[in-house]
Amino acid sequence: MKIIVVSHGSFAKGLLESAQMIIGKQENVVAFGLYPTDSTHTLRNLLEEEMKNSEDKEEFLFLTDLFHGSPFNVVVSLMKDYPIYHITGINLPLFIEIMNKRTLLKGEELCAEIMKSAKDSISDVKNYLKEVM
Amino acid sequence: MKIIVVSHGSFAKGLLESAQMIIGKQENVVAFGLYPTDSTHTLRNLLEEEMKNSEDKEEFLFLTDLFHGSPFNVVVSLMKDYPIYHITGINLPLFIEIMNKRTLLKGEELCAEIMKSAKDSISDVKNYLKEVM
Repeated sequence: MKIIVVSHGSFAKGLLESAQMIIGKQENVVAFGLYPTDSTHTLRNLLEEEMKNSEDKEEFLFLTDLFHGSPFNVVVSLMKDYPIYHITGINLPLFIEIMNKRTLLKGEELCAEIMKSAKDSISDVKNYLKEVM
Repeated sequence: MKIIVVSHGSFAKGLLESAQMIIGKQENVVAFGLYPTDSTHTLRNLLEEEMKNSEDKEEFLFLTDLFHGSPFNVVVSLMKDYPIYHITGINLPLFIEIMNKRTLLKGEELCAEIMKSAKDSISDVKNYLKEVM
């Protein structure tokens, strides 16, 4: 499964860089950033091209930064034309889980797994330490 | 309240840059990245210095990328010596919510609010669209 991360600015590239520092270089994953001078139309074309240049019959999981942001809206517009998966609000623990599980699971199962992990991927550490100590 | 984002690599800086593209330039927030050649000892000193150079009696909320990662562990080691708040697994929607609410709420209330929003900050968009359409 190919992973395409899309965000405002450098969040997507930072996410990918930081993940690769932890789990090593990953194949079949790309990051796109939308900057203030970029048009959403150009971004849509770039994402479409990225899919067209990928292997036949490959599944695509798009990860975006923010519900209702412009990158999110561009990916939603692609969902009308392509059978792609899309998780928004991505963070580093879930991204790493996706990288680790994407060869084992099909898109629908992978998204379901990730949503099961979503809540626990974010912790209030002060409260956590109170509970365990 | 001062916000200090700490991550492996450029994730923290990307998060801050992307948020500022959406909600404008923010004051009293900094981002630190730990790179493969950096020591956690140096990072700890930098974070301690950042707090010491801040206003007296200010509250600090640290945001880290990943539970049990090195940046997380450095911040946990600081929690033994300072009364700081710490949320890990940060994503863009929660970061923006923190930026918007940090002048209205004290640390404990802010962390509780953020944890309430945590689950809904991440969505499987394909499922979401099925439900609303």
